Amino acid sequence: MTALLENPTARVKWLAAPSSASWLDQACARPDLVLIDHAHCERKAAGVALQLMFRYPSDEGLGALLSPLAREELEHFELVLQLLQRRAIPLRPLPAPGYGATLTAAVRKGDLERRLDSFLVAGLIEARSHERMALLAAHSPDEELRALYGELLASEARHFGLYWCLCEERFGREVTVGRLEELALVEVQALEGVLAKPEDVRMHSVGVESH
Amino acid sequence: MTALLENPTARVKWLAAPSSASWLDQACARPDLVLIDHAHCERKAAGVALQLMFRYPSDEGLGALLSPLAREELEHFELVLQLLQRRAIPLRPLPAPGYGATLTAAVRKGDLERRLDSFLVAGLIEARSHERMALLAAHSPDEELRALYGELLASEARHFGLYWCLCEERFGREVTVGRLEELALVEVQALEGVLAKPEDVRMHSVGVESH
Repeated sequence: MTALLENPTARVKWLAAPSSASWLDQACARPDLVLIDHAHCERKAAGVALQLMFRYPSDEGLGALLSPLAREELEHFELVLQLLQRRAIPLRPLPAPGYGATLTAAVRKGDLERRLDSFLVAGLIEARSHERMALLAAHSPDEELRALYGELLASEARHFGLYWCLCEERFGREVTVGRLEELALVEVQALEGVLAKPEDVRMHSVGVESH
Repeated sequence: MTALLENPTARVKWLAAPSSASWLDQACARPDLVLIDHAHCERKAAGVALQLMFRYPSDEGLGALLSPLAREELEHFELVLQLLQRRAIPLRPLPAPGYGATLTAAVRKGDLERRLDSFLVAGLIEARSHERMALLAAHSPDEELRALYGELLASEARHFGLYWCLCEERFGREVTVGRLEELALVEVQALEGVLAKPEDVRMHSVGVESH
């Protein structure tokens, strides 16, 4: 199972364009804001997994993969929450940057299409989170944050592998890759389309290299 | 924190009436059905905790308590799912017995009232689950099921203690006890009001002693 989960992640290119240096600069300049947003992202990622478990309650394979994924996201939520509390940063709500809404709007309506697209959108969000956390783990000027993001990286990588497995098992490789390529472009547009001021930086705010 | 979480559970009487022997008989006669329903219950309990985290995203104390609770419910979901798989019992959807809907309908609308009632309803459902799992842990004719329910009992007891703490910290003891007494009666009515045939037994189907 491990091989099945890890190989496709290595072979499949999820993201159509890398994050830009300007996003990293903004994120490093506002570490508190990114931390608060990150806490919300982990909670939302658990919510997405659970929502899929509710939508397909009899899909045992899905439950068996997504339940541990949701648990891990919640563990990360708790880790980030503890760091916020140690730093006396209140967990305030933040306006969403519109990224998730743009991706959700691209999910098609038919039962099978909706299923495939939902898995791929969830996987793309995980892939972008992973890419940006890797940037922060390498370049944040704050040692504790580098360590935190480094710690979370491995399981985040596994998460988009899990969504890949859900797709490939149910829809086959060709269909999955074809639709992933389309949605990966939407994901980049979702990041480009976000009108954000530097002070509104988020885990999923504007900042990809032009492609 | 442990003392805070465990003491009130011991002192506070959550349930207004105990489950009847007829429920236990029905549950022991249909162990597969109860297991499937149990898997769904654990998933739903995680869903309730997460829903509350989404409704009150800036309440750090709530997130810090409910996130580990949701993780534990998901662990239990996975345990039950694994047992179902070992026994080759498919995880089919089951019509809900109406219990949750009756309790949800008793939640008041105002912001504070809704918050208190939501915590208490979640706690009451946990308390009833705990009471019935304890019956199954003691009386199921199936040794593996006795062990399973026995294993889950301790954390289920902690769960209604957590909901109690959320209420007491935010609303004080007197207000919490007063409203709990009212909702505990609704909980019993919710179980009495369920028109179920013996073959429709659920974790939360008809069967309390008259009070």
